[in-house]
Amino acid sequence: MKLQYGLVGGGNNGFIGGVHRRAAAFDYLAELKAGAFSRNIDANSAAGAFWGVDPARTYPDYHEMARQEHAREDGIDFVSIATPNFTHYDVAKTFLEQGIHVVCDKPMTLTVEEAEELEQIAVSNDLLFGVSYTYSGYPILLQAKELIAGGSLGTVQMMKARYEEDYLAAWEPEKDDARTAWYKDPEKNGKTGCTAGIGIHAEYLLRFLTGLEPKRLLARFSYTVPESPIETGVNAMLEYENGAEGMIWASNTAVGHRNDVAVEIQCEKGTIFWQQYDASRLTVRRLGYPEEIYDTGRPYLTPAAREACRLPSGHPEGFYEAFSNVYKRFCQDLLAKKAGEKIAACSFPTVHDGLLGMRFIDACYYSHHAGNVWTDI
Amino acid sequence: MKLQYGLVGGGNNGFIGGVHRRAAAFDYLAELKAGAFSRNIDANSAAGAFWGVDPARTYPDYHEMARQEHAREDGIDFVSIATPNFTHYDVAKTFLEQGIHVVCDKPMTLTVEEAEELEQIAVSNDLLFGVSYTYSGYPILLQAKELIAGGSLGTVQMMKARYEEDYLAAWEPEKDDARTAWYKDPEKNGKTGCTAGIGIHAEYLLRFLTGLEPKRLLARFSYTVPESPIETGVNAMLEYENGAEGMIWASNTAVGHRNDVAVEIQCEKGTIFWQQYDASRLTVRRLGYPEEIYDTGRPYLTPAAREACRLPSGHPEGFYEAFSNVYKRFCQDLLAKKAGEKIAACSFPTVHDGLLGMRFIDACYYSHHAGNVWTDI
Amino acid sequence: MKLQYGLVGGGNNGFIGGVHRRAAAFDYLAELKAGAFSRNIDANSAAGAFWGVDPARTYPDYHEMARQEHAREDGIDFVSIATPNFTHYDVAKTFLEQGIHVVCDKPMTLTVEEAEELEQIAVSNDLLFGVSYTYSGYPILLQAKELIAGGSLGTVQMMKARYEEDYLAAWEPEKDDARTAWYKDPEKNGKTGCTAGIGIHAEYLLRFLTGLEPKRLLARFSYTVPESPIETGVNAMLEYENGAEGMIWASNTAVGHRNDVAVEIQCEKGTIFWQQYDASRLTVRRLGYPEEIYDTGRPYLTPAAREACRLPSGHPEGFYEAFSNVYKRFCQDLLAKKAGEKIAACSFPTVHDGLLGMRFIDACYYSHHAGNVWTDI
Amino acid sequence: MKLQYGLVGGGNNGFIGGVHRRAAAFDYLAELKAGAFSRNIDANSAAGAFWGVDPARTYPDYHEMARQEHAREDGIDFVSIATPNFTHYDVAKTFLEQGIHVVCDKPMTLTVEEAEELEQIAVSNDLLFGVSYTYSGYPILLQAKELIAGGSLGTVQMMKARYEEDYLAAWEPEKDDARTAWYKDPEKNGKTGCTAGIGIHAEYLLRFLTGLEPKRLLARFSYTVPESPIETGVNAMLEYENGAEGMIWASNTAVGHRNDVAVEIQCEKGTIFWQQYDASRLTVRRLGYPEEIYDTGRPYLTPAAREACRLPSGHPEGFYEAFSNVYKRFCQDLLAKKAGEKIAACSFPTVHDGLLGMRFIDACYYSHHAGNVWTDI
Repeated sequence: MKLQYGLVGGGNNGFIGGVHRRAAAFDYLAELKAGAFSRNIDANSAAGAFWGVDPARTYPDYHEMARQEHAREDGIDFVSIATPNFTHYDVAKTFLEQGIHVVCDKPMTLTVEEAEELEQIAVSNDLLFGVSYTYSGYPILLQAKELIAGGSLGTVQMMKARYEEDYLAAWEPEKDDARTAWYKDPEKNGKTGCTAGIGIHAEYLLRFLTGLEPKRLLARFSYTVPESPIETGVNAMLEYENGAEGMIWASNTAVGHRNDVAVEIQCEKGTIFWQQYDASRLTVRRLGYPEEIYDTGRPYLTPAAREACRLPSGHPEGFYEAFSNVYKRFCQDLLAKKAGEKIAACSFPTVHDGLLGMRFIDACYYSHHAGNVWTDI
Repeated sequence: MKLQYGLVGGGNNGFIGGVHRRAAAFDYLAELKAGAFSRNIDANSAAGAFWGVDPARTYPDYHEMARQEHAREDGIDFVSIATPNFTHYDVAKTFLEQGIHVVCDKPMTLTVEEAEELEQIAVSNDLLFGVSYTYSGYPILLQAKELIAGGSLGTVQMMKARYEEDYLAAWEPEKDDARTAWYKDPEKNGKTGCTAGIGIHAEYLLRFLTGLEPKRLLARFSYTVPESPIETGVNAMLEYENGAEGMIWASNTAVGHRNDVAVEIQCEKGTIFWQQYDASRLTVRRLGYPEEIYDTGRPYLTPAAREACRLPSGHPEGFYEAFSNVYKRFCQDLLAKKAGEKIAACSFPTVHDGLLGMRFIDACYYSHHAGNVWTDI
Repeated sequence: MKLQYGLVGGGNNGFIGGVHRRAAAFDYLAELKAGAFSRNIDANSAAGAFWGVDPARTYPDYHEMARQEHAREDGIDFVSIATPNFTHYDVAKTFLEQGIHVVCDKPMTLTVEEAEELEQIAVSNDLLFGVSYTYSGYPILLQAKELIAGGSLGTVQMMKARYEEDYLAAWEPEKDDARTAWYKDPEKNGKTGCTAGIGIHAEYLLRFLTGLEPKRLLARFSYTVPESPIETGVNAMLEYENGAEGMIWASNTAVGHRNDVAVEIQCEKGTIFWQQYDASRLTVRRLGYPEEIYDTGRPYLTPAAREACRLPSGHPEGFYEAFSNVYKRFCQDLLAKKAGEKIAACSFPTVHDGLLGMRFIDACYYSHHAGNVWTDI
Repeated sequence: MKLQYGLVGGGNNGFIGGVHRRAAAFDYLAELKAGAFSRNIDANSAAGAFWGVDPARTYPDYHEMARQEHAREDGIDFVSIATPNFTHYDVAKTFLEQGIHVVCDKPMTLTVEEAEELEQIAVSNDLLFGVSYTYSGYPILLQAKELIAGGSLGTVQMMKARYEEDYLAAWEPEKDDARTAWYKDPEKNGKTGCTAGIGIHAEYLLRFLTGLEPKRLLARFSYTVPESPIETGVNAMLEYENGAEGMIWASNTAVGHRNDVAVEIQCEKGTIFWQQYDASRLTVRRLGYPEEIYDTGRPYLTPAAREACRLPSGHPEGFYEAFSNVYKRFCQDLLAKKAGEKIAACSFPTVHDGLLGMRFIDACYYSHHAGNVWTDI
């Protein structure tokens, strides 16, 4: 049995719309049956036709879509939201209120309040709500997560995550281009740049791997682009619930860093390291032993890590496959739920993870503007 | 406009069937409309239903499929062949004779004669015939190919390619398992093991990158598995048409090598190096300059290499995306052909490349058994 | 002509004494002619004999050594100090006051005040004073330094340096071992552990490469070893004189990090990266171009970088050779000075660099204990 | 107690003379006491003075040196030979005949016959004879050697070694420069270029690591430099005594390869890999386990490997330190011998290893010129 889903956004050849579409299709667990792809009527029709969606279910407006799909006997099981950030909140709320499950891009909302409200609605309506923190979908990270949880490395002491890229290097914000448009209306884009754009990926990875929540942080923003009204870098010290410490940094102007996501978890008796550049491998360093490198597709992996691999070892699985794993986990949980199972703990990043991301952004913003002071999250 | 295609094989959860299916779907250029997925009637129906193929076009037999699809007004444009190697020849021939274009797994046939016949039929019927040499689909290799062709590195002097993995390490061929079944009937599997299985990938990569054809070779087979009737390793010296030399080696028992495909082209004034382990990057070494590393998704790439990239730099594109690029090139050429364009040179690996692969295998076999002597290809 | 030097310390097979000895000998610029190797008379004599030093110049006491060498016609040109940290100040002062040039281990002293005093004496006596910040001796870092100074990469924006190792992982400080002895007497060891031990190497590298001095910092200490009275980790945010920002972190308990020293300088239009693990190579990333890797021993290097290389490219030059380069620069400057040249800017790390290291330590200590607040350096 | 040695050659700032000098000095096991540094009288005197050798023991001629040192009560224990290849034979023979032990550069001689004669003289005079196969001195390779000997990886099946560099890339041999001078007189330089120059390093590494001797080989020479009378590349298939197979290749024109020495030993149940670029690390791949990386300076190493390391883990030890380890092993064996111990198996590369290197060169030469046929070694 396959799930049926709808897509909001993705009609204008936006990058992330295609990623959602391919990711949802990868494992044949969900079929695209409805959509509100674009506010432009022609683009909307064209997208629906291109993707084989029934014209009757190609809606000009997502409110209409939510209502009609709710009313249909064969309405969609869930909606994927691939629209600009400032619309996430209303789109998600609209579908949740019609009892339709949601997969939403990150950052989940513009404000903590919106995120809290979405969480409240999802919980009270008993709906699944996934947030597309892509990097958690890399198969070998399940090995890392279980290794840490297993305890053989001891207590987590220091964790570090970074996300550095150079999309805004040599950016001239006074010129009009795709890079400037998005921040010109603060109502639409929230108060941070780098932090909401990429910093939260780093923050989530640490939580995903260790299961620990940050309690407070001290952050510094960097403004490496002259005239830029928003920060292009962030650098934070964190404290976690068990006394562990953290460091997170991100930059949009780190020349030559190409979506350079990396994470290291230092425990008493061992360290794990992973980076997207070498996404199929996990470095494990145990005190007193040679360094180990775990590879995808190998029989020594834990069952969960093995199951997340789709290819024999060495054949690289990349960003699309990671994104697909987030969808796969969401779909499997939703299929189980529809079959009457109780989902104790979701296997995908949830609305709560989305909310914590918003709190992280907020705390960074406050800490920086208050003079780099410790701020509760 | 999209192409419509059919699939032969892929009905029993075989690895390569799913890869073809996903690859063909990736760019929305082709839709699966017909299939003969399995000789097992139930498996065939289940596969057709799973993939949403009309039951009327879910055929129990590929001969039937070829006839009926040929007869339909809306019959498939091409067929993908993902069956065991020994059936490739007959399946391909059957569809070619009905005027249907073909994408076929490698090795294309079991013998040189079969390959020559397929080439003859495809050429005389003016049909496109793609062979799935996956590795040529990695985007950054187009950069390499154009760099070499551009001439700034000078004449090709020495080229090396390897494919090492460990699927047969610690194999006990007298035991019955999936690994032994395939070679027990030589009629079905051809006379070589490692060479046809993986060696030809290495051989094709060199041709793909340089455009040079090998003239003769001297090969040694290795038998690292006791009792194994087929070679588990091959090591060849080659001579190419312009005087360039080559080295190719492959192994099924190289412990810890994980589908370790790598290629190096040494020219007078520069060297290029690529390996699947780091598939997004190309190392270029120019005499007298610092080493350079080219990355996918960067603006300095050639237009063709840029176009083959689907993601911003740093987000890894893997095996599925490479396979998809082979399909994309085939589909684009076929769409152009259907639109009346003349295809001077195919952008994908053709039936002729498949034939040269068979000649390479044959020459290796002869050279080894004749005492490692130079053998014309 | 060769310099003549004396050694204080190094008599008990201590690691760093041998390093100084080998480093000074490497380029035949200095000959060991005198020493006070150990307070233990037998060990002192044995060391003198082992290294071929005249018994008459093998002194039981460094005060005596300074007086007598000063008095000799053929007295030593400089002294190398390879004693425990708490003695550096008095040994250095003793020789400076006798008009003898100094090479001293780092950290130069225990307190800022001592460091200021040494600087004052050295300057007023017109003496050269080198501090063994080893990592600045790696040849390829001269390339980095000149590349940054040349300006083609633009203004420095963010710089990062780390030094992580695991010497104290699983340390049990209540047990008596070599690792605990050194901190038990705070009078002897200063107030910080990781910061003075390794953190200052990271701090110096940033200054060495960019020529920029830090103005203020905000630091957090980590105490990853239960019961440890001294910090085993440090993590600092820095601000530099031109508005550049910095991040420095160090750890003694980062399991599997093996004297893992790395530095990255991010400028407007380019980034340089270097790590001791791959000490012969420098990664340079220029906006809009493929990544470049510079190697030691290559003709495209700047003259200074080339001259610092002792081997053809690819033959690794390691820690000893880096240490030797610090000595080589000191000796070359001293030979020039003795020949009557005026040394406008020393080519080696000076007493002022040693002083800035002490100020860095002090500021980290204050910042942490004041609640991680910004502290002037 | 220290050994006393003499040096023949090294007087004209030749690269290898300085390497010998530093290597012998590194561990304070040998002191330079005599020399015939150059045929040029002034250069000879200058070198003697520079290195502090008594003018009375600074000889104009190595025959004279051998005679006089033999006659002295305090004559040298051994001689180091750092002269051009064609003189090795006569210099070595001269000192052996005076009962003086020898360390000689590689290739040991120009012909197999000369090598056999030297071996015969050394054996009959009971003299130690070391050959400077530098790469065997890298500490982590002792770990590899003992791992293979320990048997846990199973039988050696395939071994590969390469040495690629680009010293002759873009070489124009008709022009007179340092690169052409050496081959113009075949009487002086032997019949091969790349094979004797660097290929034998690769060949020795395989023997050093596995203890296996090659029985026969099939080689192809490459002539990548127009007009070059000598080969600039070699590529050989080998068979070893236990049925293991080998591949060796070397090149002087592999652009961008910087003394790129690498070795891989593939056994039934595991593989080891090492390369000079990352000289402190050894990759071990065991069937069914994560890849392991062994580092120098770590407590889990075997005692012999630990003892060969001079620095804490992570501080790179390079080419000089490897060369020094060859000297250290020679000196330790010689000290033991002088103390009356019987040296059952030398710990350094011996005259027999030098002879096998000459036989390897000879077999390659014959095989290539006979049309790439199998040739006994």
